[in-house]
Amino acid sequence: MLYIVGLGLGDERDITLRGLEAVKKCGKVYIESYTSLLSFGLSSDGLSTLEKLYGKSITLADREMVEEKADEILSEARRSDVAFLVVGDPFGATTHTDLVVRAKKIGVNVKVIHNASVMNAVGVCGLQLYRYGETVSLPFFTETWRPDSFYEKIQRNRGLGLHTLCLLDIRVKEPTLESLCRGRKQYEPPKYMTINTAIEQLLEVEQMRGESAYSECTQCVGFARVGSEDQMIVAGTMRQLQTINFGTPLHCLVIVGQTHPVEEEMLDFYKLKGESMQQIENVTV
Amino acid sequence: MLYIVGLGLGDERDITLRGLEAVKKCGKVYIESYTSLLSFGLSSDGLSTLEKLYGKSITLADREMVEEKADEILSEARRSDVAFLVVGDPFGATTHTDLVVRAKKIGVNVKVIHNASVMNAVGVCGLQLYRYGETVSLPFFTETWRPDSFYEKIQRNRGLGLHTLCLLDIRVKEPTLESLCRGRKQYEPPKYMTINTAIEQLLEVEQMRGESAYSECTQCVGFARVGSEDQMIVAGTMRQLQTINFGTPLHCLVIVGQTHPVEEEMLDFYKLKGESMQQIENVTV
Repeated sequence: MLYIVGLGLGDERDITLRGLEAVKKCGKVYIESYTSLLSFGLSSDGLSTLEKLYGKSITLADREMVEEKADEILSEARRSDVAFLVVGDPFGATTHTDLVVRAKKIGVNVKVIHNASVMNAVGVCGLQLYRYGETVSLPFFTETWRPDSFYEKIQRNRGLGLHTLCLLDIRVKEPTLESLCRGRKQYEPPKYMTINTAIEQLLEVEQMRGESAYSECTQCVGFARVGSEDQMIVAGTMRQLQTINFGTPLHCLVIVGQTHPVEEEMLDFYKLKGESMQQIENVTV
Repeated sequence: MLYIVGLGLGDERDITLRGLEAVKKCGKVYIESYTSLLSFGLSSDGLSTLEKLYGKSITLADREMVEEKADEILSEARRSDVAFLVVGDPFGATTHTDLVVRAKKIGVNVKVIHNASVMNAVGVCGLQLYRYGETVSLPFFTETWRPDSFYEKIQRNRGLGLHTLCLLDIRVKEPTLESLCRGRKQYEPPKYMTINTAIEQLLEVEQMRGESAYSECTQCVGFARVGSEDQMIVAGTMRQLQTINFGTPLHCLVIVGQTHPVEEEMLDFYKLKGESMQQIENVTV
């Protein structure tokens, strides 16, 4: 049996009882390292905390390994119970459909243990989840690669009065240019898009396209480390949020559509007020 | 402190370690009864299972009670730790924004403990969550009340190639007509919309509107008891799904938009095949 276990968003205590039970009976435990180390302590400490809780060792499985060694993982799962741990929900923002498809094709049973994902946890700001349009992903711009297909989607959502969840780019284990040339694997340090960079890129695209899909006065909500003890949620205009230091990753951004009164009331709690607001106005004007 | 704790989708084992820890230290524990008893065993057995796990008694708080007694709940939360348990994620398909707003207004601290919600758990069928448009709710039609505002939304999503999650009506504690006339409170038995009824209503509206937003040949995915041990997921046309008995609630339905190859591959596992398909074709032709 292959168990795909969602770990939730905060730390090791966000696994469910059902998830923990499954992990404890597995002979082999993998964890996707894509975002996991980050969420659970930014270092190998996070991993050892998990290992202590589960009472067994965990193998880090980055994207490359999952692609290259899927057969190995699956043949283990054919013989015994294997857990594959995923931050958030297994089918949340990142998906593991490919591994599941391969498992099912060779007759390995798959059991999914769900958990919270950023896609529903953003509901905490009070914007109703059924009032969201299509989710967009914002990739890091480079000198030569500045894809902006998210622009039409945001425009469409806003035209319909819907909110837009923007998932921000994560770059982990990107080969360096040098290593690509020399054929030896060396990796760039991990890179996570901040809300500030996201807004900068959004405004750059708006300036280029000029179709007023949004502006620096558009209401947004910035989320950092949502679901963790030290999560930070701030509502404000793009201009306001751009001046805020949201701290360590992960960040995401919601562009607010039309709001109902009850949504407004909740958002108010997250708005910058009084002094902090004035400070920001001073900085940005 | 008011803890709003998501219980997840399956049974008592779907609470997170963080959630269980919070509940255990609370002096008073409420559970929203809106969908809870249903998900956790359909009877008061479910409640006693939870009480045993938590080691304390739980007060059922239906919608009426939350509205009428919010002040009482909140003044308890001001003095000590109170848990309010919610099936799924606290801000998933049903929301508890109002209670949170009232708490924050009188200065009661609120801590939200997230969990899986139907809105991300449907990802298990392989349709990518970022390819969904606006979510719709299908209400029970009555003789005189047949609201169909969902039609435009589905039409719009499909026009953009997006999938649509349809949440199906739940009627709990609806006063009987007789009780309304006599001023004494008596309630209808609880009522949960099945996938079959949902499709029947959808096709009725399509026939009336005639704008081909969808048809009985449109691909859908039916979900029953998603996240539970006995969940049932079937992909097929509206006509095919209409003939299937999905069993006990809760049900929901996804109307499929344009699919990518990897989405198709996953969906294939949930499609009716061979004999079962033929049986259905025989029934429906």
